[in-house]
Amino acid sequence: MDEDVAGAEAPKAARPRKPRVDVASRDAKLKESRTAEGMAKRQRDISVSEFFAKNRHLLGFDNPAKALLTTVKELVDNALDACDEARIPADIEIRIDALSEERFRVSCRDNGPGIVPRNVPSVFGKLLYGSKFHRLKMSRGQQGIGVSAAGMYGLLTTGKPVQVISRTSSKKLAYRCDIAIDTQRNEPAVKLEKEIEWEHPQGTQVEIELEAQYRKGQHSVDNYVLQISLANPHAQLRYLPPWREQPDEAVVYARVTEQMPPETAEIKPHPYGVELGVLMQMLRESKARSVASLLCEEFSRISPRVADEITAKAGFASTLKPTKVSEAQVIALHAAIAATKIMAPSTDCIAPIGEELLLRALAAVHPSPFPTTVTRKPSVYRGNPFLIEVGLAYGGDLPAEESATMYRYANRVPLQYQQGACAVTRAITATEWKSYGLSQPRGAMPIGPLVILVHIASVWVPFTSESKEAIAHYPEIIKEIKLGLQDCGRRLGAHMRRRRREADEEKKRGYIQKYIPHLASALQEILGLSDPDREHTVETLTTLLERSRKL
Amino acid sequence: MDEDVAGAEAPKAARPRKPRVDVASRDAKLKESRTAEGMAKRQRDISVSEFFAKNRHLLGFDNPAKALLTTVKELVDNALDACDEARIPADIEIRIDALSEERFRVSCRDNGPGIVPRNVPSVFGKLLYGSKFHRLKMSRGQQGIGVSAAGMYGLLTTGKPVQVISRTSSKKLAYRCDIAIDTQRNEPAVKLEKEIEWEHPQGTQVEIELEAQYRKGQHSVDNYVLQISLANPHAQLRYLPPWREQPDEAVVYARVTEQMPPETAEIKPHPYGVELGVLMQMLRESKARSVASLLCEEFSRISPRVADEITAKAGFASTLKPTKVSEAQVIALHAAIAATKIMAPSTDCIAPIGEELLLRALAAVHPSPFPTTVTRKPSVYRGNPFLIEVGLAYGGDLPAEESATMYRYANRVPLQYQQGACAVTRAITATEWKSYGLSQPRGAMPIGPLVILVHIASVWVPFTSESKEAIAHYPEIIKEIKLGLQDCGRRLGAHMRRRRREADEEKKRGYIQKYIPHLASALQEILGLSDPDREHTVETLTTLLERSRKL
Repeated sequence: MDEDVAGAEAPKAARPRKPRVDVASRDAKLKESRTAEGMAKRQRDISVSEFFAKNRHLLGFDNPAKALLTTVKELVDNALDACDEARIPADIEIRIDALSEERFRVSCRDNGPGIVPRNVPSVFGKLLYGSKFHRLKMSRGQQGIGVSAAGMYGLLTTGKPVQVISRTSSKKLAYRCDIAIDTQRNEPAVKLEKEIEWEHPQGTQVEIELEAQYRKGQHSVDNYVLQISLANPHAQLRYLPPWREQPDEAVVYARVTEQMPPETAEIKPHPYGVELGVLMQMLRESKARSVASLLCEEFSRISPRVADEITAKAGFASTLKPTKVSEAQVIALHAAIAATKIMAPSTDCIAPIGEELLLRALAAVHPSPFPTTVTRKPSVYRGNPFLIEVGLAYGGDLPAEESATMYRYANRVPLQYQQGACAVTRAITATEWKSYGLSQPRGAMPIGPLVILVHIASVWVPFTSESKEAIAHYPEIIKEIKLGLQDCGRRLGAHMRRRRREADEEKKRGYIQKYIPHLASALQEILGLSDPDREHTVETLTTLLERSRKL
Repeated sequence: MDEDVAGAEAPKAARPRKPRVDVASRDAKLKESRTAEGMAKRQRDISVSEFFAKNRHLLGFDNPAKALLTTVKELVDNALDACDEARIPADIEIRIDALSEERFRVSCRDNGPGIVPRNVPSVFGKLLYGSKFHRLKMSRGQQGIGVSAAGMYGLLTTGKPVQVISRTSSKKLAYRCDIAIDTQRNEPAVKLEKEIEWEHPQGTQVEIELEAQYRKGQHSVDNYVLQISLANPHAQLRYLPPWREQPDEAVVYARVTEQMPPETAEIKPHPYGVELGVLMQMLRESKARSVASLLCEEFSRISPRVADEITAKAGFASTLKPTKVSEAQVIALHAAIAATKIMAPSTDCIAPIGEELLLRALAAVHPSPFPTTVTRKPSVYRGNPFLIEVGLAYGGDLPAEESATMYRYANRVPLQYQQGACAVTRAITATEWKSYGLSQPRGAMPIGPLVILVHIASVWVPFTSESKEAIAHYPEIIKEIKLGLQDCGRRLGAHMRRRRREADEEKKRGYIQKYIPHLASALQEILGLSDPDREHTVETLTTLLERSRKL
């Protein structure tokens, strides 16, 4: 579009003649609109789809290039989650077809368990619908927004509905459904629905047509798919970029390991994370027989014995019916929970990538003479378990004068934008890299040929926005990342010192080799040594000097 | 709470004895849960309140100190909007009472038009409800989330409902309503409702009890209230901080001007901002007689003549009924809009603070020998008009070695957090401050005793999150901010050069005054001058040298 024409000063000649308005009636209207009654007429519901359509940058659809990446991301996240949850080694095909420079069709097919037909419309045509929100379990998606948001963006920009094919078993036909989202009601509008033959025995395929831009470089889809494969070595990815020479020309990232990531458990909230108002609501709405059974059922790490201890501290019987608990008693109960020693949340709910696979991933993005990785023990923020993994790769052909390169991952998903707002950035800039032999401007990234990789795995990753691009600044998370960086940093520091020592030695050795023959010749001349004596002197001197070097 | 106990390694002794589980039945369950049918059982709606309760950091409730500030902010934003819209000079009282170190009651009372009783529950007990979302008009609130979110946070942390008193006329009784939000349904639950006597003739008072922390310093509520008053010189603010010596001890920010900000018009979307999919939907759902009348009614700057021009370009009659337009015709219509010269949006929808009032505001935060301000002409991003104002204050008692201090405002609301993610920061760091005589590390804020103030006014401010703390990086917005900074920067540069020249002159004058008498004495001695001759020589020399100085 010609943005200049929409500038502040339009040519006067273009001013259209509008019909005259009735000033008296307009003023009366204006006056009425300023009263409480007038304002009341304008107060109404806002559908969550309308909200996000207007605020699409919150979902990662700020501009056409980012829109393409976000769409691919949401589709692949969903596909990988489905396969992992069904314990099926993922086999995923991502295809982008360019319909013009500004319009693309993105398609993603997985070999997961499929989706039952009755739920397909809501899964793809309704924001805030899904299976992952009401639980604490490590997964890529968590909010029930992403894939429907991508579909909505496609619909807004091209008018085309999302096309879904899903098959839950080779014994059944596949189900095809075209879905538009009704933004004013946040409900799916099914445009087409039928059973079809499909060449694949099981899985889901989603196609979205959207206005977008395809770019190369750091924030490209190509680079993104590579990064997904690094964080998901158990998955096989076939990627067909736009403008292919051959229709089936694909970049294939083969499975690196046959082992699925360890299965993670769903956990209940830890009692330390519950707030007073939430606890009041739980008691009020509970159908449990007693406070003790409510505590045991709704929270993790509360045994009947611990429940008794808590209620005793709160000053009432653990057999009291939850709905009978008074306000004063809830307050006492809340305080008693905080004052009782309760085991930390179990940590089988988190699956790290692991130090070895992380090393391989590092080597793939940046081959370097010194790579190192660490997987920290799980820790807890606001009652939620999480775990940090860090990798460093130093040296190689990266520029020595520039800031380190950062790769961020959350639950195996690469984070591409909003680096400045991320807890990972905060942790890196707050680390003292000088003590590991690197230079670092005050409050900035370290300088040097360094790649830093950080992965956070958690049952609930606190993102700074719905587009899930940066991690919120929880102190516990920043602390753990810093500890991971320090673990790796110390190893890097040792490597740097060793390297410097070796360089010094090399230099010294150079001196010895250069000057000893001359020295020997001089001695031969002064002392009148024979040639063998001279040779012997050279050898003795060299040995002596080399030995002193080792001290 | 004892966070250590919740660390990764809990004492083994504390492990509770849990009843043994039936392994076979558990495995069967697990297997079932992995199928499409099993997953379908877990797929369900997520209420927008549940969503934000879990993601409260998106709303500005990341920690107790920020929670207090956010609550004050949302209440004051609403109060000021209500008064401004009713064209009543705002008189607002903000009161914070400490119930303990961790629990506060925040109360905000305005003299606005009040809210009709039937709408009170939804306004305060339902997220995504309001009068400001479905329109394009400059206001502080725009989403219909803020004040209900503050109430929800209070409810979650203390279990207390929001208390509202509202009176729409001195001829009526006031209406009191206590509202809790039902997070699972995102609906208000009215806890108490009655008519009461109230000492104030008109207005609204909202009280929220919440877990929070009161802090002093940059991000304090005290500082925030000062900043609100600076951006709203037409409003009178009474602020009663916690732990007052006297119950009615208040900080009063008196009204600085009797003039209300100019009234702003509500506008319709500009046609250049409409997307294909949205246009399709508008046509499909339109009740207009013809495409021409739809275009004229739904968009700004489309006259019947322009509508005819557009449809002619699209290749169909402007009298065609909207619902009869084919898909190919919509595509042609969309292209025709982009290809037609249409006037820029009208700009009476934006009210700047103004250069003079901005100067006063600058002087209040930082008295300096060189303040300067500029109000730019309105511009447009994605079809939305916006306007940038910039102020610089240089010198005074700020440290010379530190980064400049930044004040950001959006629609007269101070922005306190997420500075790093904001378009204002990007624009400042991307400006070449060296050419205005300041030092500036690469890609960083300029260094020096400098205060930078930026205000963006718009019918729709694109924030990076629901907490409205930073402005998204739209290129048009960054460009305008940079132009504003450059306007002020050039003046600062001239000031810096003049100051340097004056300093040089001062030095020179010092030399003249110091050496001429000596020179004259020497000449008197050498040439045998009389005392009057010597005086005359001093005068002549001084005049001569001063004149040469001016060249």
